[in-house]
Parts: sequence; structure tokens; C-alpha cells
Amino acid sequence: MIYVIGHKNPDTDSICSAIAYSFFLNKKGMETKPARAGEINAETKIVLKKFSFDQPELLETADGKELILVDHNEKEQMIDGETKIVGVFDHHKINFSYPEQIYFHAKAVGATATLVADRFFKHNIDISKEMAGILLGAILSDTVIFKSPTTTKKDKEIASKLNEKLGLNIEELGKEIKKAGMDMDKPAESLILRDFKEFNFGSKKFGISQIEIIGVEEFLKERKGEIVEAIKKVKQEKQYDCLIFAVTDIMKEGSEIFVSGEEEVIEKIFNIKLEQNSAWINGLMSRKKQITPPLETFFKN
Amino acid sequence: MIYVIGHKNPDTDSICSAIAYSFFLNKKGMETKPARAGEINAETKIVLKKFSFDQPELLETADGKELILVDHNEKEQMIDGETKIVGVFDHHKINFSYPEQIYFHAKAVGATATLVADRFFKHNIDISKEMAGILLGAILSDTVIFKSPTTTKKDKEIASKLNEKLGLNIEELGKEIKKAGMDMDKPAESLILRDFKEFNFGSKKFGISQIEIIGVEEFLKERKGEIVEAIKKVKQEKQYDCLIFAVTDIMKEGSEIFVSGEEEVIEKIFNIKLEQNSAWINGLMSRKKQITPPLETFFKN
Repeated sequence: MIYVIGHKNPDTDSICSAIAYSFFLNKKGMETKPARAGEINAETKIVLKKFSFDQPELLETADGKELILVDHNEKEQMIDGETKIVGVFDHHKINFSYPEQIYFHAKAVGATATLVADRFFKHNIDISKEMAGILLGAILSDTVIFKSPTTTKKDKEIASKLNEKLGLNIEELGKEIKKAGMDMDKPAESLILRDFKEFNFGSKKFGISQIEIIGVEEFLKERKGEIVEAIKKVKQEKQYDCLIFAVTDIMKEGSEIFVSGEEEVIEKIFNIKLEQNSAWINGLMSRKKQITPPLETFFKN
Repeated sequence: MIYVIGHKNPDTDSICSAIAYSFFLNKKGMETKPARAGEINAETKIVLKKFSFDQPELLETADGKELILVDHNEKEQMIDGETKIVGVFDHHKINFSYPEQIYFHAKAVGATATLVADRFFKHNIDISKEMAGILLGAILSDTVIFKSPTTTKKDKEIASKLNEKLGLNIEELGKEIKKAGMDMDKPAESLILRDFKEFNFGSKKFGISQIEIIGVEEFLKERKGEIVEAIKKVKQEKQYDCLIFAVTDIMKEGSEIFVSGEEEVIEKIFNIKLEQNSAWINGLMSRKKQITPPLETFFKN
């Protein structure tokens, strides 16, 4: 038995591609079985449930097993164990070494699921509605509803071809999946600490946090007050000069930034007017490229 | 312009696959050009001439160029220079790392040309007689006329599909190509020294040489006397206890072994009767696996 398996800390593309590629290989006469290299996240759970698939078998170790790797090829991301690698089917950059000739296929697209679906189409193997659903879900997940810069024409083509089976509103499906994975029901403080970084700009100490969501208005309507309390508290506790928390809406393509400390300076730098410690900035998507550079420039001079 | 290029010290598969894969990619709408990473060998010259192709352009360096690698993927085999790698199309084991997502396709078959021809068939792109000729030639070369252990069913299938265009006797074509590459017209002494190794078995010093040919009878009829003289001379000069020269026929699957020194022992070990210092041994193909082990066992006891 050959296991078709994605990377450690599996995401939706890893899980759904493993299921679908294993099915495809079996149709072509191989004996394979999908597997997973770790616990399934909230987003993937929704996708599997929505299209009536069970979670693939969890491999605790891959010792002595034969594997086909999907959605990864680097050693660090592989499940542990002494294994025989039979093939690789992936869309990532390559950093791979193996002492035997094997099958290896990689292409620069946004999701492994795009390549898997392409195989079904090219080999004229019928895709069930459910299988089309998990493949489409994986494409929407890995391309962040086609917003990721890794997205290609091919991803969109394949997604719409898959949707011929389903007749869904692709964007709505994408939002539903992404929202499920965002797990926004946590307390504001834990959302702030989820992806949190410290910076020193000149003599000032900053904390800058970012989360990505869908449906920022609705979210803020319910929780703005709570967030303002939480940023003040975290700033206080960590003794920062300033705490910035960017709530980035991937569909609206902008961020609501919350600021505690140095408010006037921040207003000047980003040309905004803070109300209740926050303001919307259209087009602000990247902490690395759009938040830290102007702060660094300002405070270093 | 993207160059499609094989490995350094190019062989027939590297050259012919570069020509054919570049042609295929151009048909699919890319702009590519075949190239080579070094001088062309005698075998490849014959194949190109027979099917009316020119040598691809020689790249002295690949600095600043965009490349698609065929028939290799390891850094050591790549043409020197700072290049952008766009894709890899290969049949070797993988030892590859590149910082960007690229196209990478490898499959465990006997020749890259098998994979290239497969692409033409799968995409219904017409193969000219000449193109079929160089692809078939490359398959026969890299699989040693299907005798190499890397040969797969796929190589044979594709070869016979290519030959539908040509109507040749595949085995005869293979022999013609291989013979051309063997360059047997050299003096006996230089044939002996071509792939020569020294061994110490117990207190005895051996020289063991092997060449691979096609048409052993014809070769020996003309040159047996000259070879016997040459092995005696080399043994004398190098002061070995014994010199063995195996002339292995890849089609007949056996070797004529020439022996100077320790003749009686060799006769006993290999259960042969030497005549004019030589004997035919059916099935003897490998120096490493079939000649040195019994000698080592005998002389160490």
C-alpha cells in the first residue's frame, strides 16, 4: 500500500489533494490510500464536511512505508520516519534529493489541487460533485480566493471547470471556507497575539500585529470596543511605546488599524484620522511592506 | 529566448532531447532554442547526420540566460554560469534546489527522449520522420538497446510507436548507433587502457580492464592476435601478476576474456579453457560483480 500524503501541519490543499490524487492514481491502476501528517485545521474540517469526505488516516510515523508526497517536497515538511518515496506531486519551489529515480511533477500554480484536477481532466476521469468540491475548496484556500500573488490563470480556469459540476458562487464558497478557518470567535487579546511581532524603531519600541479576515465591517460592529480595550492592555503590559493591530480584510483589500500610543505620529505618517483608536486604510495589506518601512524611516530620522 | 539544454559532456539523449523538446515547446507557444553544453560525441554525430539535424548551438557559458534543463538536474552537471532556470525535464534521480517555483517533470524511464516523445503523442503534435529518428536513436543509446536495467516498458512502447514513422529494424539501428560510438578502431593497447583498474588480491597484483562492444566475433576475427600481444606487453610493463581484459558484447550478453599471467588459476576459477590466452564466458557482463569477487575470494584464502 502506498500512502499519498501532504506536509506536516496540513492545510486544506495538502489534505484535499491527497484524497483526490490517491483516487486518481487508483483509477489509473495503482493501489494507494490518502493519509495526513497531522491534525486537521478548522478550515479543512469545514471543506471535508461540506462535501461529505472523512478525514484521511493519520500516520503517526511513516517508518517503513511507501509514500507519494503531495503539496511539499522539502525534507523539513515531510512526515518523520524512514520511508520509501515513490513520487512527488507539488506546486512549491523545489529543494529535494533522493537516491533513486522517481516520479516528480511540479508546476508553478497556486495550489496542488489545480494540478490534481488537471490530471482528472486530461485523463478523462470522471470527477464526482463531492471530489470537485474539495478540489475547488483547496484551490480557493491556497490561492486566498485568487488574491495570493501565486495565483495563475490556470488556477482560475480549473476552478471554473470544477464549478461546472457544482454550480456554486465561487467567491461565496471561498469566503465561507476562509471565514471558517479564521477562527475569529477567540477573545480579542488572543487575536492580537496570534501573529505578533516586536520592532525597535530608533529609541521606540513597537508591537505590530496583523490578522486576515473576511467581513471586516460585521466583525468590527460586534467587537470594536473589545479590541480597543485589548490593544491598550497589551501595550501597557508589554511596555511598548506603541501597539498597532491591523485587521486586514482580504476581500475588501484594506485594513482597519488599531493604535495605542504615539497616536498623533501615526496619524501623520499614515495620513489618517483615528477615531476610537482606529482607522480604515484602503489598500493596506502587508505589515512587512506597508507598515514597518514608513515607521522605520520616520523614527530613524 | 529560452535555451533548452542537456548536461555537460553531452550524450545522445541530452542532445536529441534538447532539440525535440525545444521544438515541442515552440509548438505549444513558447520561444525556445536547443543548445548544447559541450562537444558532441561520435555516437551523437552519427544520429544527427543520419536524420539530417544540425548540431544545436554551443553555449560557452549560460551567464544571464534562461534555461530549461533536459536530461539532468544536478548542479555539477549543469553548464556553468549565473542562469535563470525556467524548467527541468528529466529521467534521473533528483538532487535539485531552486529558490523559485518552476516546472519540474521527472519520471523513472530509461531515456529523457521517451518522456519527450510521450509529450508529442499526448498533445497530438505531429512528429516528422527525422524527429522520430533522433528520439528513437536517443532511446536506443540511453537504454543500451533496451539492455540497461533502467529500461522500462514505456521506453519500448514509445520506441515502437516512434518506429511506426520510420519502419526501421530497431535493433539494427541500435547496433549501428552504438557501434559508431564505440570507436573501436584504436590500437589494442589504447582499448585495454580505456577503462582499466588495478587490484591487489592477497599478495597478487592484478590489472583488470573491460570494454563493451557489439559484434564480438567480427572484432576478434580481425584483432585477436593484436590483443594477445598487447595484454602481454601491458602486463610486462606494469609488472602485474595477471592482466585480464574482458571484451563484453552487450548484445550477445557475454565476454571474451583475455588473460596474461596466472592462466591455470584463472581457468580453474572461471571454469574455462583458455586458447590463445582467451575464452568466451556466457553471461559475464560485470567486472565489479562477476570478475573481481571470485578472484578476491580465491587469493585471500
